[in-house]
Amino acid sequence: MQTFILTLRCQDGPGIIHAVSGALLDLGANVLEQAQFTDEESGLFAMRTRFEVESQGGAGQQASAIHEAIAERAARFDPVIGVRAVDERRRALVMVSKYDHCLVDLLYRYEIGELPVDIPLVVSNHEDCRAIAERHGIPFVVLPVTAETKADQERAVLALVEEHDIDVIVLARYMQVLSDDLCSRLPGRIINIHHSFLPGFKGARPYHQAHARGVKLIGATAHFVTADLDEGPIIEQGVQRVDHADTPESLAEIGRDVERLVLARAVRLFAEDRIVLDGSRTIVFG
Amino acid sequence: MQTFILTLRCQDGPGIIHAVSGALLDLGANVLEQAQFTDEESGLFAMRTRFEVESQGGAGQQASAIHEAIAERAARFDPVIGVRAVDERRRALVMVSKYDHCLVDLLYRYEIGELPVDIPLVVSNHEDCRAIAERHGIPFVVLPVTAETKADQERAVLALVEEHDIDVIVLARYMQVLSDDLCSRLPGRIINIHHSFLPGFKGARPYHQAHARGVKLIGATAHFVTADLDEGPIIEQGVQRVDHADTPESLAEIGRDVERLVLARAVRLFAEDRIVLDGSRTIVFG
Amino acid sequence: MQTFILTLRCQDGPGIIHAVSGALLDLGANVLEQAQFTDEESGLFAMRTRFEVESQGGAGQQASAIHEAIAERAARFDPVIGVRAVDERRRALVMVSKYDHCLVDLLYRYEIGELPVDIPLVVSNHEDCRAIAERHGIPFVVLPVTAETKADQERAVLALVEEHDIDVIVLARYMQVLSDDLCSRLPGRIINIHHSFLPGFKGARPYHQAHARGVKLIGATAHFVTADLDEGPIIEQGVQRVDHADTPESLAEIGRDVERLVLARAVRLFAEDRIVLDGSRTIVFG
Amino acid sequence: MQTFILTLRCQDGPGIIHAVSGALLDLGANVLEQAQFTDEESGLFAMRTRFEVESQGGAGQQASAIHEAIAERAARFDPVIGVRAVDERRRALVMVSKYDHCLVDLLYRYEIGELPVDIPLVVSNHEDCRAIAERHGIPFVVLPVTAETKADQERAVLALVEEHDIDVIVLARYMQVLSDDLCSRLPGRIINIHHSFLPGFKGARPYHQAHARGVKLIGATAHFVTADLDEGPIIEQGVQRVDHADTPESLAEIGRDVERLVLARAVRLFAEDRIVLDGSRTIVFG
Repeated sequence: MQTFILTLRCQDGPGIIHAVSGALLDLGANVLEQAQFTDEESGLFAMRTRFEVESQGGAGQQASAIHEAIAERAARFDPVIGVRAVDERRRALVMVSKYDHCLVDLLYRYEIGELPVDIPLVVSNHEDCRAIAERHGIPFVVLPVTAETKADQERAVLALVEEHDIDVIVLARYMQVLSDDLCSRLPGRIINIHHSFLPGFKGARPYHQAHARGVKLIGATAHFVTADLDEGPIIEQGVQRVDHADTPESLAEIGRDVERLVLARAVRLFAEDRIVLDGSRTIVFG
Repeated sequence: MQTFILTLRCQDGPGIIHAVSGALLDLGANVLEQAQFTDEESGLFAMRTRFEVESQGGAGQQASAIHEAIAERAARFDPVIGVRAVDERRRALVMVSKYDHCLVDLLYRYEIGELPVDIPLVVSNHEDCRAIAERHGIPFVVLPVTAETKADQERAVLALVEEHDIDVIVLARYMQVLSDDLCSRLPGRIINIHHSFLPGFKGARPYHQAHARGVKLIGATAHFVTADLDEGPIIEQGVQRVDHADTPESLAEIGRDVERLVLARAVRLFAEDRIVLDGSRTIVFG
Repeated sequence: MQTFILTLRCQDGPGIIHAVSGALLDLGANVLEQAQFTDEESGLFAMRTRFEVESQGGAGQQASAIHEAIAERAARFDPVIGVRAVDERRRALVMVSKYDHCLVDLLYRYEIGELPVDIPLVVSNHEDCRAIAERHGIPFVVLPVTAETKADQERAVLALVEEHDIDVIVLARYMQVLSDDLCSRLPGRIINIHHSFLPGFKGARPYHQAHARGVKLIGATAHFVTADLDEGPIIEQGVQRVDHADTPESLAEIGRDVERLVLARAVRLFAEDRIVLDGSRTIVFG
Repeated sequence: MQTFILTLRCQDGPGIIHAVSGALLDLGANVLEQAQFTDEESGLFAMRTRFEVESQGGAGQQASAIHEAIAERAARFDPVIGVRAVDERRRALVMVSKYDHCLVDLLYRYEIGELPVDIPLVVSNHEDCRAIAERHGIPFVVLPVTAETKADQERAVLALVEEHDIDVIVLARYMQVLSDDLCSRLPGRIINIHHSFLPGFKGARPYHQAHARGVKLIGATAHFVTADLDEGPIIEQGVQRVDHADTPESLAEIGRDVERLVLARAVRLFAEDRIVLDGSRTIVFG
């Protein structure tokens, strides 16, 4: 048996679930997990189904055949369809600067099989994290960046995305702001961890901002990156209790735990095709 | 338009979703919300769909017609089907002893429309809470109980369940243990709030037990009542942080907030047909 | 025995704790609970001690005597000292508009003895909540407000504060913005519940803002009111998990539970003299 | 300047804080942080003070002098006193079997300076985790254990404790039950992480137990090890929300995050002398 994940999005209308479930039935599929949601405001219908069918030829070829069968059956809804064998993992390019806690965490989860992605390379603007990547046998590419070289550096990043057939860029505390151009080329395909509970404390040094404001909880937010800095669709958020005795430094320390948990969850949700972009929001099939 | 909730449970097999969605499509139903789950261990398939169709005749009659249509289409799965117009609310009998925080909370939510149930009466073994019920215009019935009169008292409770067409008994800190006989007559239809994070601290005075053990979090558990005391299927749980400075009294105080939140959530889940009994566990379509 | 709470704040320096504990020792005090904190940035030292001494004369007189003894002993630190018999409860004036969930919750806790304050009256700009206050035997004063009458209305509020010897105004979803003048007359003595996790979603309709932004957690913030709207020192915050399926309405519903818990905690902290203003932040002796 | 941590415990009585603060004042100490607590049930008074004084001679020698000065001043309370320069870190021996997530987490925090301990060696009954320890430059000692060799193996562990001047043994998912003898030799000096929310699900395979019971939250508990298995004084606990769709495997996966956070917090509390044993409970100065 081969397990696939189907994702489908279209304008809502009667009969979608029936059409899709009919196609799956004809394919002899055994549905293991299914979720669907209609955004009543935007009218977007989104669906995710994990199912198994008898293995037939290569997984890629079979996925195409399934895609076609569903597309035909659901044609009148003009849906955007994705079909993928779960064995054909999503491919992530992780970017990092000097803070390594998110990188260390992601690679550990990757190593023990908790994060069902492939990570063909780690890219950084600094040398600092080389040993971490290489310990896991992952090539580490340094692409330094200055105001002058930013455009070139991003072109190099994009070339790596192409070359390695990357599905998602994960900014694991990568401290450079991406250009609007890069953001708009990869909509819904760049995940950032912002070290605050957005929309509070946008911009730089959020833990210092949080301390100055005297908040009683600090948080972290994983979101898709858009041209509008710190305003991309939110994927996941977490918080941790703090108090008046915390300094900006201890807030940062506590925050690191929230950051890595929240980023790891977001990457996993992406890896399992559980996130659907819905305008400025996300639908997350948890 | 009239909105209905369909619940369905049967042994899992290919084609169930298709059969049900086909029936709904034929009925001209517009699916607003749907969830399904298969317990891979027990093989139980469970489904909940909220949908709207054009109103036709009385809601009760229409529900029966829909029930029939789905039963026919899904006959080979031999499912247990429920169809209910959301306007025909679940009917709850609330039982209470002397602690009134859960009762006050439930009735407040009921009054402001947060809890979509009907509460035709409150039953107690004491007079204490009469004013609370009557302030909301709900009849308050006192059925005292002693070891000798317990069987009679429970018969009286059952008679009220019959008379008022009750769907669920909510034990809102009702301090009497129900007899096995009563429990077994109403499986999945009695909800209790236990003032501990089960399975820890079963039995009496759980906050004293928690204090003696020096726990750092206390909790509450809403569960279906079975003959096996404090072992019924868990519906919902919550916790709250405490520390060494808390006394059994302050634990109880903190606990009250957890208890009423957890019980209110459980009652609401029941009221919206979101809980499915699955042996000693529950499936909760959140 | 009579129990007192001592609060003390001054510029930090060596020997404060020793001076105060010496004074308490001489008074024959038995310390039940003590906490102190130095804000290393501002240099503020703050302390709170709960202790019991043999009762002598009236509690008020005895408090004055204790105050004097400590002031003398700690004179070189030029501290701000508060001494209060716990029986002489803080007096709260609760203000409300139409949403009643926070009012209902506060008055319930007050009634069962969970909130050690006196509430001599409830003030509103509407008639709606009269029955709630009066059920608890608390006078309900309606002071309507329009743009034209605002100054007069606030003068009337201030007159009530004087007349009833009020320590704290609790804005329990009071939907009017207080004037800068009123705010500056009662620094650290007006507590508001803002229905968002500040500093995110300041201003109006925060649940709609939260929905539009697609957040995964919503929150509430209790803070002291200052002339700078929604920017006063934060006392307490709470959050609750939500997801894409939540509407602005369901967010508001979930939010109500967070609001009332957070506000009740803040009022209780005030009632027990646990909050110390420290510039734009608070020290909270939990 | 040199920073010290003072801990003191004795039977409660009037004048302790005054005596200690007097001694500190005479020593020219600047108190940075102080907390104290009296367990009204047991009558235990516990105190922790972090202070700085001018450096004088070696830190060890100075600590002894301070110890003596305080002991003299507080003699009539017959207290147990600890004085330690914060630079003289607590020394931890970490024990692990095959699950490495807690070890990896502890050593990462150790490396980036988040965990103020010295870890002179890691001991295991298996070879599996050698590379992890050695990557951090920490000697890895394998002491296999069977029913027959258990007594000898524990003697070897105790010899390492002596040899390396170990303050605390951290069981980072060490899967062997320690003998009563070993436990009783190191009271309050062995920390274990139990992968459940004690006292629920004691014993083996707690995630399977949690799944069978259908709980809605899972947890982890760090506790001191005593002869009474899984009943030692609780230091820290955490929980995470789960639902019916979780399998024992996914519960274990979610649980790993809770386990490592809770254990790391407990080790840090120990490293900072924040935990005081109080019979079967702990006082934790957070």
